[in-house]
Amino acid sequence: MMARRGFNSTGIDAVLKKAGVPKGSFYHYFDSKQDFGLNVLEHFAAGVETIFASHLEERTLSPLARLRSCVESLAARFEENNCSIGCLVANLGQEMADQNEEFRKKLADIFGAWMRHFEKCLAEARDAGEIPEDLSPALAAEIFLSAFEGALLVSKVMKSPLPLRNFITVYFERVLR
Amino acid sequence: MMARRGFNSTGIDAVLKKAGVPKGSFYHYFDSKQDFGLNVLEHFAAGVETIFASHLEERTLSPLARLRSCVESLAARFEENNCSIGCLVANLGQEMADQNEEFRKKLADIFGAWMRHFEKCLAEARDAGEIPEDLSPALAAEIFLSAFEGALLVSKVMKSPLPLRNFITVYFERVLR
Repeated sequence: MMARRGFNSTGIDAVLKKAGVPKGSFYHYFDSKQDFGLNVLEHFAAGVETIFASHLEERTLSPLARLRSCVESLAARFEENNCSIGCLVANLGQEMADQNEEFRKKLADIFGAWMRHFEKCLAEARDAGEIPEDLSPALAAEIFLSAFEGALLVSKVMKSPLPLRNFITVYFERVLR
Repeated sequence: MMARRGFNSTGIDAVLKKAGVPKGSFYHYFDSKQDFGLNVLEHFAAGVETIFASHLEERTLSPLARLRSCVESLAARFEENNCSIGCLVANLGQEMADQNEEFRKKLADIFGAWMRHFEKCLAEARDAGEIPEDLSPALAAEIFLSAFEGALLVSKVMKSPLPLRNFITVYFERVLR
């Protein structure tokens, strides 16, 4: 619900109704709606960590093939969803980064952790001679994250998988060459 | 207000108060809040057209220098705003693309018009030998838009101009080379 409607437009009552949980239980576990929102973000990030690990630690593939299989898998999920919703972190980033500093810090931490995973994989790709020597893995990781999130947004607005697919092609065939 | 808080969280009463306009006048000009929102988007897009024209039609510069001065100018504005707010079309795209088909179509039209401006400039750059022959101007234009919007988002979340600056460098120095 938060990924679809945003944080501000998601009412706790609607969440409780959907979950079939009484209000008293909510305040047993969460101090506030904000506390709940931050926990939803952590839960989402933990799920993404599992996806990343399953691809980026797949040692039978080369480092670059691992990164590519990771992003292809995320793109396939998004396309199965008819190019809707996108990424919870990006959606809440757009909505909350200027409104709530605690949210912003949590979102920045998650983006930072993702970039470190990509950087590690890209550093291995460089060591394996798969990407140019003069390309900084940290820079390439940052561009990977930001261009992916932007392509996801444009695909969501255009309701077409092409912007996301074109990002993947251009990233691997031009940025990393 | 819509760029900062989003469409759903912007109340018409707050807008009228800020503008010092009575409610009757609002409904004289706009049928509904949605009608108002679509008009705000058109007004924003018209402002962006003026910025684009001032850079992309600047015939004293080469096509690539025009595109670069355009994006540098947008980046400077964003940085003057302390890396906040970002792009109204991206913000409402994130929020509204799955909620309201009329909004989505308007947002897709605006993105489409922007891509055509970039494509025209990039086609001129190709004719002038500034970018590779085998790079499609339409593809390069789409990547320019999507990677720019993503970098804007990551800069907004990290509250750092670097992701946006790094996108500009990588786009001109790697994607277009």
